[in-house]
Amino acid sequence: MQQRNIRLLIAYDGTNFCGWQRQCNGPTIQEALEKKLGIITQESVQINGAGRTDAGVHALGMVANFITTAPMPASAFGKALNSMLPKDIRILDAVDVSPDFHARFSAQGKSYRYDIFTGPLQLPAERLYRTHFPCSFQPERLQASLNLLIGTHDFSSFEAVGSRDRSRTTGRGAVRTLFHTQCLVDPARPEHFSFCFSGDGFLRHMVRNLVGTLLWVGIGRLSTDQFAAILGARDRKKAAPTAPACGLFLEKVYYDERTEEVRDS
Amino acid sequence: MQQRNIRLLIAYDGTNFCGWQRQCNGPTIQEALEKKLGIITQESVQINGAGRTDAGVHALGMVANFITTAPMPASAFGKALNSMLPKDIRILDAVDVSPDFHARFSAQGKSYRYDIFTGPLQLPAERLYRTHFPCSFQPERLQASLNLLIGTHDFSSFEAVGSRDRSRTTGRGAVRTLFHTQCLVDPARPEHFSFCFSGDGFLRHMVRNLVGTLLWVGIGRLSTDQFAAILGARDRKKAAPTAPACGLFLEKVYYDERTEEVRDS
Repeated sequence: MQQRNIRLLIAYDGTNFCGWQRQCNGPTIQEALEKKLGIITQESVQINGAGRTDAGVHALGMVANFITTAPMPASAFGKALNSMLPKDIRILDAVDVSPDFHARFSAQGKSYRYDIFTGPLQLPAERLYRTHFPCSFQPERLQASLNLLIGTHDFSSFEAVGSRDRSRTTGRGAVRTLFHTQCLVDPARPEHFSFCFSGDGFLRHMVRNLVGTLLWVGIGRLSTDQFAAILGARDRKKAAPTAPACGLFLEKVYYDERTEEVRDS
Repeated sequence: MQQRNIRLLIAYDGTNFCGWQRQCNGPTIQEALEKKLGIITQESVQINGAGRTDAGVHALGMVANFITTAPMPASAFGKALNSMLPKDIRILDAVDVSPDFHARFSAQGKSYRYDIFTGPLQLPAERLYRTHFPCSFQPERLQASLNLLIGTHDFSSFEAVGSRDRSRTTGRGAVRTLFHTQCLVDPARPEHFSFCFSGDGFLRHMVRNLVGTLLWVGIGRLSTDQFAAILGARDRKKAAPTAPACGLFLEKVYYDERTEEVRDS
C-alpha cells in the first residue's frame, strides 16, 4: 500500500490540555490526535507538529502532518477526527501533501497573537482567553520597542530558562528574525489590546517573555532604552516575568505554498 | 444596627452553573453569592436577582440586592466577594440603594444578546459562548420578522412549556413589550452574528425560543408570514425548538436611575 503524507490544520482551546506535545503527566493535543488517528487508520500514527505550545496556550491554525497508508480521501480524516475528538480540538482542513513536507522542518514562519484586558475587573467569559492586566497601559509608549524587535536578533533575553541546549541543536542558537510586531486596540472595546508577532521562528516562551517585558514598557516601568538594553543583554534574568499562557494564540504557520500540496488523485 | 439595602452588578460565565437560582441539584450563582455574603456579613443573607438565568446562560450585567446590617462601605462588599468567589463570577459594582429597591420588582426592562456562528467548523475558544449554526443564514431575510416583534404582544408561542402558571402570577400573563430587536453581523468576522432584544420583561426561555424560530426564518425555512402566524397562534407547539443556552448573555437590567441610589454616608 502506498504511503501518504497528510497535513492537518488544527484549532484548539488549550485550557484543558498540558500543551501540544505528548508527555506523561496529563492530556495533550498530540496524544488526543494520535489516539484517534490510530483508531481511524488502524495503524500506529505519529504526528509532527509545527511547534510545541505550552499548557493553556490556544491555537487558531496549528499545522501537523502524519504518514499513513489508509486509502480514504484526505478530507475524510478531518471529518472522522472531528466526530471523535472533544469540541476543544477541531480539524479545520486535511489535505494530501508531498512526501517531503514536514510540519516543523518545512515551516518558514509563524504568527502569534497575545490578548490582554486592562480594565479593573475581568469579564468571566474572557478569563480563559485573555490575560488580565489591570494597569494604566498606553500602547503608544511601546511603539519604539516593538519597532526595535523587527529584524534579526539574538533573543536569549526572552528564551525560557533551561531550553538553551535544545534551541542550539538547530544551529542558529537563539537568533531569530521577526517580520512584524504590533500592538492593536479593539476600537469597540478600548481596554482590549492584542500584541501580534510574526517571525521565522520563536524560542520557547519567547512571545510570553516579550509580552511580559513590553507590558512593563506600556505602563512606563521600563523606557525604550531599557528595553533595548534588555534585548542586547542576551540574559533572561534582565527581562520581566513570563506573561500567562491563556492570552496566547498560535495564529498561523507559514509554508511555501507552491510546493507542498498534492491533489487528491 | 441599621438595615441597609445593597445592590450588586454581576457578570458571570454560566458554563459551570445550574443557572442563577438556588436549587438542590447543582451549584448556582445565587447560592455561591449567598454563601460568601454569609461569611462576609456573619448574617444569613438572601439575595434577590433581577431574573433567573438557565444553566449555561451568561450574564454581563445581572443585578441583585440584599439586606444587611454589616457596617462596611458598599464597595467593600464587591472587593470581598471578588476575593472569595471563583473567577467565573465577578462583582462589577456594589452600592447602597434605597430600602424599597428590589432587583426583580423594581426592574423596568432587560436587554439580552444571543451570539451565533454560522461557519462550517466552530472555533474551540468560542464553543462555550456562541451557538454553532452551520447553515446559510441571511440576516436580511428576518428583518421584517424582527420588526413584527417590536411592541406589545402575547408571547405564549415563545414561552417555555409548563411555565404558564408562574407567569400568570404577575397578572399580565404572557404579554410583554419589546422595545428593540436587531440582528447584527460582526464586520470583521462575517460568519459571527448577534441577536439583540430589549423589553419590559421576558418569559422563561423566551429569547432562546425567539432565536430558535428566527434562525429558521434566516435560512428560509419559514417566511415572514409564517413567523407572524406563529406569534399570533399563542401556542408553543407552533414555534421552532429552543436555541441552546450557551449563546445567550443577559446584558443589562434597566431601573429608574433617579430614585434608587443612596450615597455612601
